[in-house]
Amino acid sequence: MNTFGNIFRLTSFGESHGPAVGGIIDGCPPGLELDMEFIQSELDRRRPGQSRITTPRVEPDTVEFLSGIFEGKTTGAPIGFMIKNQNQRSSDYDNLKDVFRPSHADYTYQQKYGIRDHRGSGRSSARETIARVVGGAVAKLYMRQLGVSVSAYTSQVGEIKLENDYKKYDLTKTENTPVRCPDTEKAEQMIELIKQVQYKGDTIGGVVTCVIQGAPVGLGEPVFGKLHAALGSAMLSINAVKGFEYGHGFDVSKRGSEMNDSFFDDNGKISTRTNNSGGIQAGISNGQDIYFRVAFKPVSTILMEQKTVNIDGKDTTIKARGRHDACVLPRAVPIVEAMAAMVILDYYLLSKKV
Amino acid sequence: MNTFGNIFRLTSFGESHGPAVGGIIDGCPPGLELDMEFIQSELDRRRPGQSRITTPRVEPDTVEFLSGIFEGKTTGAPIGFMIKNQNQRSSDYDNLKDVFRPSHADYTYQQKYGIRDHRGSGRSSARETIARVVGGAVAKLYMRQLGVSVSAYTSQVGEIKLENDYKKYDLTKTENTPVRCPDTEKAEQMIELIKQVQYKGDTIGGVVTCVIQGAPVGLGEPVFGKLHAALGSAMLSINAVKGFEYGHGFDVSKRGSEMNDSFFDDNGKISTRTNNSGGIQAGISNGQDIYFRVAFKPVSTILMEQKTVNIDGKDTTIKARGRHDACVLPRAVPIVEAMAAMVILDYYLLSKKV
Amino acid sequence: MNTFGNIFRLTSFGESHGPAVGGIIDGCPPGLELDMEFIQSELDRRRPGQSRITTPRVEPDTVEFLSGIFEGKTTGAPIGFMIKNQNQRSSDYDNLKDVFRPSHADYTYQQKYGIRDHRGSGRSSARETIARVVGGAVAKLYMRQLGVSVSAYTSQVGEIKLENDYKKYDLTKTENTPVRCPDTEKAEQMIELIKQVQYKGDTIGGVVTCVIQGAPVGLGEPVFGKLHAALGSAMLSINAVKGFEYGHGFDVSKRGSEMNDSFFDDNGKISTRTNNSGGIQAGISNGQDIYFRVAFKPVSTILMEQKTVNIDGKDTTIKARGRHDACVLPRAVPIVEAMAAMVILDYYLLSKKV
Amino acid sequence: MNTFGNIFRLTSFGESHGPAVGGIIDGCPPGLELDMEFIQSELDRRRPGQSRITTPRVEPDTVEFLSGIFEGKTTGAPIGFMIKNQNQRSSDYDNLKDVFRPSHADYTYQQKYGIRDHRGSGRSSARETIARVVGGAVAKLYMRQLGVSVSAYTSQVGEIKLENDYKKYDLTKTENTPVRCPDTEKAEQMIELIKQVQYKGDTIGGVVTCVIQGAPVGLGEPVFGKLHAALGSAMLSINAVKGFEYGHGFDVSKRGSEMNDSFFDDNGKISTRTNNSGGIQAGISNGQDIYFRVAFKPVSTILMEQKTVNIDGKDTTIKARGRHDACVLPRAVPIVEAMAAMVILDYYLLSKKV
Repeated sequence: MNTFGNIFRLTSFGESHGPAVGGIIDGCPPGLELDMEFIQSELDRRRPGQSRITTPRVEPDTVEFLSGIFEGKTTGAPIGFMIKNQNQRSSDYDNLKDVFRPSHADYTYQQKYGIRDHRGSGRSSARETIARVVGGAVAKLYMRQLGVSVSAYTSQVGEIKLENDYKKYDLTKTENTPVRCPDTEKAEQMIELIKQVQYKGDTIGGVVTCVIQGAPVGLGEPVFGKLHAALGSAMLSINAVKGFEYGHGFDVSKRGSEMNDSFFDDNGKISTRTNNSGGIQAGISNGQDIYFRVAFKPVSTILMEQKTVNIDGKDTTIKARGRHDACVLPRAVPIVEAMAAMVILDYYLLSKKV
Repeated sequence: MNTFGNIFRLTSFGESHGPAVGGIIDGCPPGLELDMEFIQSELDRRRPGQSRITTPRVEPDTVEFLSGIFEGKTTGAPIGFMIKNQNQRSSDYDNLKDVFRPSHADYTYQQKYGIRDHRGSGRSSARETIARVVGGAVAKLYMRQLGVSVSAYTSQVGEIKLENDYKKYDLTKTENTPVRCPDTEKAEQMIELIKQVQYKGDTIGGVVTCVIQGAPVGLGEPVFGKLHAALGSAMLSINAVKGFEYGHGFDVSKRGSEMNDSFFDDNGKISTRTNNSGGIQAGISNGQDIYFRVAFKPVSTILMEQKTVNIDGKDTTIKARGRHDACVLPRAVPIVEAMAAMVILDYYLLSKKV
Repeated sequence: MNTFGNIFRLTSFGESHGPAVGGIIDGCPPGLELDMEFIQSELDRRRPGQSRITTPRVEPDTVEFLSGIFEGKTTGAPIGFMIKNQNQRSSDYDNLKDVFRPSHADYTYQQKYGIRDHRGSGRSSARETIARVVGGAVAKLYMRQLGVSVSAYTSQVGEIKLENDYKKYDLTKTENTPVRCPDTEKAEQMIELIKQVQYKGDTIGGVVTCVIQGAPVGLGEPVFGKLHAALGSAMLSINAVKGFEYGHGFDVSKRGSEMNDSFFDDNGKISTRTNNSGGIQAGISNGQDIYFRVAFKPVSTILMEQKTVNIDGKDTTIKARGRHDACVLPRAVPIVEAMAAMVILDYYLLSKKV
Repeated sequence: MNTFGNIFRLTSFGESHGPAVGGIIDGCPPGLELDMEFIQSELDRRRPGQSRITTPRVEPDTVEFLSGIFEGKTTGAPIGFMIKNQNQRSSDYDNLKDVFRPSHADYTYQQKYGIRDHRGSGRSSARETIARVVGGAVAKLYMRQLGVSVSAYTSQVGEIKLENDYKKYDLTKTENTPVRCPDTEKAEQMIELIKQVQYKGDTIGGVVTCVIQGAPVGLGEPVFGKLHAALGSAMLSINAVKGFEYGHGFDVSKRGSEMNDSFFDDNGKISTRTNNSGGIQAGISNGQDIYFRVAFKPVSTILMEQKTVNIDGKDTTIKARGRHDACVLPRAVPIVEAMAAMVILDYYLLSKKV
């Protein structure tokens, strides 16, 4: 199940400490000009070592395209690509070979497959998300032509939380701070918190909010392919994600009469006065902004001693070494955008099929 | 996209006011004894008119099986089934033909398909979930043989909310109250609240919590087929669902050192001291209880006047007639269980070793 | 694997001696007027008892639609349908319960599933093709709007074989004879042969030729979804089919210089002088006629004593009773057309430009 | 549609004159030792320049694996791989940029995608089959453990044709001649014919026969996933294939009483006296040898002047340059085996899922 999507499909491969990570994009419409600089800039947003609050592991993460492009444009053929792994320190993981790190993939992979590449978490490493960012960047280039934008930002780190919804912020400011939060003041507090946590060898989670603007009416394939079910599945497939909500989500304290979005004639265009629906009604986009929130757990790798068992089931302790993020939120923002862009393009293409 | 699942697959059909709703279950293992009484009892839990806090529309919702069964057992052939629609009052919907009900499927279906069966919401009616309950009941029968149980309950209605997690309740008591909440006191409050809301012609949402016990280690297909991504997609495909979280979900205030589930040797079996992971690590079940929460919005159909537009985009008002639920939570419980059971069986079959 | 297609999808169910056969058509474009008379007439072409050279089992095979239609038109929702089984004589099969009929499904189904509905061959009965004919009829109605026609005919029965290719015949004459062969003289010979074979309790195979005219350029999804691969898979999935060839097929005696179809400017339209390619080049339709041939084996059920083994693996003999076709070719013609129509519509929808 | 298979899935990428061809194998069971020498030897059987009767283009075609392998064994993670393109002479194709070669992919690709990599046929080049051979080699390694073998050979070139069926030949001799025909005498005649045709700048087609031995009973997923439908689709997806038949195929002259394969007790194992069914009954393998035949057309690229049109639809002529095969049969043999091996492994894994 390393393939994502229906018409626009990404199949990915690669482990943290293998020769390369990469993928194949299938079903990309032909004739799309691939802006290589943009694609690389998206990878740079995800790349480790980009700021003082991310892991110091430095990887250039340069993408090489292997097929599907002719004279700078997509041809309709599958687009193969890879990113070589470079700054590996496999020896950091020698002590993990025979123990199961708490809340990590070690135990479940070992039990499921009977074999496990323990170096850098193998296939369960977040390096796998590189392929998603490439796929998402291609999707964004296509969506840009249609006037659709996808903007995510960090809206919560630990207990520090934006008080307003996305409409109150200037989302073009998201990239101004390394934590990718458009509220400068809160951003500083988040950074401070991450540093404190990092100093203790601990980790912290948070929430990413994402907004899709300009999506046409009609995306979504009832009943099992509802647009928000596809977005939810996409987000939940990202490492460390624990929850997804769209529109008013888990806020169920209000009544139907307060929550319903009444329609009105907006100068000849049908619009809604409020948008508690989150831009999706009965699984189909209604032309309003689509917005959702994604919860990320604190990274499981902590630089503190933890109790656990070894491969023989015997009690032992473990203490991680190596270079790790104390908080994935800043680097999660482009991944959330990438997955959202792929879903929207895929559903856009699906909606053209009948 | 009316097919759900990979190996165990449900394809459903049917509108609220058509001749029947039903489906085809494909990929059910052969030799499974179908306990018809159990399947019908699951439908009875979903059925309208079952209590004073659900819609008074009375439908017997009796399932007829059309294929795939021989001498009471599944044969490996597809299982066709249908439930005839009976107590329809299509005239209740005459006034809705040319207007778009707020937060309903009317507008998006009309825009997407250019045609719409307005009677009883057509395909977007919650009657569609009948097929899910049948599929889920068959899945439960199989899972029962494996010692896997799926138990959901109402954990929140509006502002009334269970304070403890599932472990503190006796889930066999869930069915004792019409609101399907195992905490008798809270159940009474919820019922009271629903009645108040109902009296005003308004509606109210809430949260269903679901627990899967006894699932084997190893279910889940990285990276895009993570078990919680499949569960999330399944839940988000249910009518009125706005959010999904598993394990500690959106509660991201704690540190990694507090959230990690340390392993220990539990008399020769590897277990975890805590279960903040919600029974799933790196997308694969780890043998602990799998639990998650599903947010439902207040039903969009309210018996109050609302502003909206008609099919020509002109401002107008609307007031629903007919028989509706003021709160879907009680009837949503068996649907959540059904979708969970189908996902778990599907992933169990996927995981089968060669 | 009871689902066929990518965008336009048919999922079928039903056994010969169960309550009904039927299916669900998903992905049919909305707004299509369903000509019920036409759909029934296609079923009548497949129906048993239609002439003296088919099985005398008489079934009206009347289709009931259960969903997906509003005021006579498709709505984009799944179209459920069923055809009740009526003229069953299950007792004809009592003696087959514990033996494996040669070249039939008995042995392989028993081994694969460990359980088997022996009555009328259960799921492997050709009654399953009823659902295909309904799906194909709906596809034909859509294709008709696009100016695409699908015409099949019997081109060989046993050793009696049409000498010319499809261009030499008036295909509107196919339905004039019960054997569905447009060459009246050959048709008489085929009928005579079938009667002789039938008289002896034996059976005979043959070949169906099919021509698709008016298909647009561009249908086919390289590399694994080549149009002829999809057509081939569709045909090979029909009961009793042993081979598929398109264009010049197995006739490999000529050189490339003789076989290549040279292009020319046909009054502003690019056309080919010959059509050895069969209307498909590199897996994509080129605007010329698509034609192919499908080989059917002699029916396995013969009214003669045969050696075989019983369910315990012991040698025994068997002699079939009941009402059977001595030659499936006449009734196979509409099934071949139905599968071809579904493939072409599915690939048309897949090919739709964004 | 560059993905093949259900459980064992190959997704391929690459054009003839791009940087590389390759693919991702997903769903390979974990713990399989990858014999790299064997995989490379399979590529060598497909490689151009291997003998005097294949194209003189010399490519080492060395495979690099990028993921999914740990300490020489598969891990259950996707296996990425690539083969760099090296001996390209893109200038050979400069004259083809604006014309459509007869019976080639040029016209249909241009019409379908509106853009086309004309160099070496781009995506429609037979270099794409390299990925299939890698996938097939991995599948063969797994099948070998199960005692299943897949053996193909050239059974016809132009009018020269083996007279007997596969049982009469020693298939271990297939590799002894460059034409891959186990009948030494016929092999010499085929080689002579290919040379004559080559000398004239012409091309010639033929037939590959393939036999699968040792496959267990029960492979095949009725009704649309019949084993022979999957094999047929796989074969028809190979470049230049025009037909597929299994068992007695298009030989429909005999009666049912002559064709039926009677069962007998073969020392406690159920077997059949004859095998006209080709090892498959009702779409499911019955434990006998599975055999089928695949027709290949003469290569479309001939070194002779041909009439055609240019991209503007104007009549013109064309004469190919470059290095081409006069007959694909010798190099097609390992590709047929590869596709067959992938189908059998995929269906073996599917058969374990219920």
